[in-house]
Amino acid sequence: MNRNFDEIVPVRFVEDRLLLLDQTRLPGEEVYIEIQTKEDLWDAIYKLKVRGAPAIGVAAAYGLYVCVRDLEPDSAEEFAAEVRQTADYLNSSRPTAVNLSWALKRMVKTMEDYLTGCEDAAAQSGGTADEERKIHWVKEALRMEAGKIHDEDVAACRAMGEYGLTLLKPGMGILTHCNAGTIATAKYGTCLAPVYLGHERGYNFHLYADETRPLLQGARLTSWELQRAGIDVTLICDNMASIVMKNGWIDAVVVGCDRMAANGDGANKIGTSGVAILAKEYGIPFYMFVPTSTIDLSTATGDDIVIEQREGEEIYKMWYEKDMAPAGVKTYNPAFDVTDHKYITAVVTEKGVVRPPYDVNLRKLFGKEV
Amino acid sequence: MNRNFDEIVPVRFVEDRLLLLDQTRLPGEEVYIEIQTKEDLWDAIYKLKVRGAPAIGVAAAYGLYVCVRDLEPDSAEEFAAEVRQTADYLNSSRPTAVNLSWALKRMVKTMEDYLTGCEDAAAQSGGTADEERKIHWVKEALRMEAGKIHDEDVAACRAMGEYGLTLLKPGMGILTHCNAGTIATAKYGTCLAPVYLGHERGYNFHLYADETRPLLQGARLTSWELQRAGIDVTLICDNMASIVMKNGWIDAVVVGCDRMAANGDGANKIGTSGVAILAKEYGIPFYMFVPTSTIDLSTATGDDIVIEQREGEEIYKMWYEKDMAPAGVKTYNPAFDVTDHKYITAVVTEKGVVRPPYDVNLRKLFGKEV
Repeated sequence: MNRNFDEIVPVRFVEDRLLLLDQTRLPGEEVYIEIQTKEDLWDAIYKLKVRGAPAIGVAAAYGLYVCVRDLEPDSAEEFAAEVRQTADYLNSSRPTAVNLSWALKRMVKTMEDYLTGCEDAAAQSGGTADEERKIHWVKEALRMEAGKIHDEDVAACRAMGEYGLTLLKPGMGILTHCNAGTIATAKYGTCLAPVYLGHERGYNFHLYADETRPLLQGARLTSWELQRAGIDVTLICDNMASIVMKNGWIDAVVVGCDRMAANGDGANKIGTSGVAILAKEYGIPFYMFVPTSTIDLSTATGDDIVIEQREGEEIYKMWYEKDMAPAGVKTYNPAFDVTDHKYITAVVTEKGVVRPPYDVNLRKLFGKEV
Repeated sequence: MNRNFDEIVPVRFVEDRLLLLDQTRLPGEEVYIEIQTKEDLWDAIYKLKVRGAPAIGVAAAYGLYVCVRDLEPDSAEEFAAEVRQTADYLNSSRPTAVNLSWALKRMVKTMEDYLTGCEDAAAQSGGTADEERKIHWVKEALRMEAGKIHDEDVAACRAMGEYGLTLLKPGMGILTHCNAGTIATAKYGTCLAPVYLGHERGYNFHLYADETRPLLQGARLTSWELQRAGIDVTLICDNMASIVMKNGWIDAVVVGCDRMAANGDGANKIGTSGVAILAKEYGIPFYMFVPTSTIDLSTATGDDIVIEQREGEEIYKMWYEKDMAPAGVKTYNPAFDVTDHKYITAVVTEKGVVRPPYDVNLRKLFGKEV
């Protein structure tokens, strides 16, 4: 991969320092902020300086380690209490973000398993473990676990990229919606992973980025990271997806997913379902990139997924110099919509490509009886 | 119609004064500007202070009269030359606006017909007409013709409204895109005309306005005029059309048209074709409101309609406090798209509702052999 792409990293952990790319300052400024306290990290997650479920998970894991690294408590028990408290505090920054709580729980469990192991060993040897050494080594365990979470996410995204690439051909025009790119994950992204891997292999793709109203992730983030990596990208308004498809410029649509039900209905950024319907009408394949952690077999269909409603000011006030709608205007501002499984050509996971019927084949992915 | 609705007038001609609602200051301010010189009017049309093809035509007709009203030339011939020159100048303000050149040509022809009539009358009576009287009466003829253009547009919109209303039922949810409302015409609008007439009759419609990127006519203008008239309106982003349809909130889609080909393909504001495809997928009727002056039988299909391309800065710079895309980003910014006739449930004109097959039935509308 070229140097420019490797430079686009949302979470850096270098010489025991945690640096986050401040995504709120993109595309104008490329600035890294150092996380030194739990308050720094809480603020960075809350204000979307780091965003994208996988990237938040990785940042939280390293962040928990960084925030407790310099603690010098009298006992391992005291240290463990501090770690749990810090994890709870960080988890409150975006309570609904699945990867955030998942990563923090995994870190706390790592600590607990290590301490239990120490006690067992001490009990067996008939002595007591040295508290200072225990604290030292549990910190090491936390640092290593964060690195493991990081590495696993890179590997999962890379695997989704390789599987996704089997669906694409050199020279293709590819439309994407919102940002499920490298800065939303540890590296590569989900739906943009095959784009980066293909680019590395000279596939010469032509990307089209929907601007993605109202929060403009496509304009601010996707077009930025693709341009930065040297990939041909054209920014369009969401309502131009139909004409670029009609023009014959789009050979495939790739999107991410926030939650997929057992029948293959997938919730993703608002507007995704409309793009899927247009793709079907124009005979263009529509691929949804879904880490298996995002597939929820306990949710039967998309109808069971509750859609987050957000403030109308995001539509007519945010970003603008002055209000763009009359005072008191009524709005409807859902953050996501559900794409019916019948519009999804294939689901790409880190374990492979899943084709319909999804109610059968998604269960198989988890080794479940059908 | 309620008082609030009657107050929303884009072009006012009162006591020989021409006043235009400055649409660039909506929705924040409701300000009328007086047109006193040809430069005032040129600037108002060029800067979209008055917009919408019918409204521009009406403003240009009154404006031409206002600009030449105080001229005191020595001869009718000299006056006629001034009028033609002024019309040419005004026509250059938006050279591609069909109604602008149409209204100006009609005004010039009115003048010419009147002057020819004077000469014929003088020749028959064996004398010569008094130049001062001729100039006085030709000015009167211009004023009356402008009023006629105005009245005809009100009548055409009202007729489209009545025909359109036969397609709608009380309590319906109605989605519209861009602004083809009362401020785009002399009164009532094209596709919003049935909404206003229905509102007057207690139909209790629920309107949904697409914000219509990049120029936000839906947010700035449509939601403003509907709210001002006391009609229930909800503003959504363009990419939310799919979810409001899926929610079961939309019973009909109404849109305007900038140019319709002989086979019923209709060019309209960018994004219209996508809304039409979604409506078809969800089984919702899609109605295009098309004054017969907008139907061009000499254009065979939508493929023959050239689409205006606009500056990419409208997408990532205009309205915003700071640039919302990386410097040098490539964009595609077509002003219109063509909706294939197969997605159009019915075409509503001032002469009646036209159903498919459009290649046959549009010609019939003009009394043409098929």
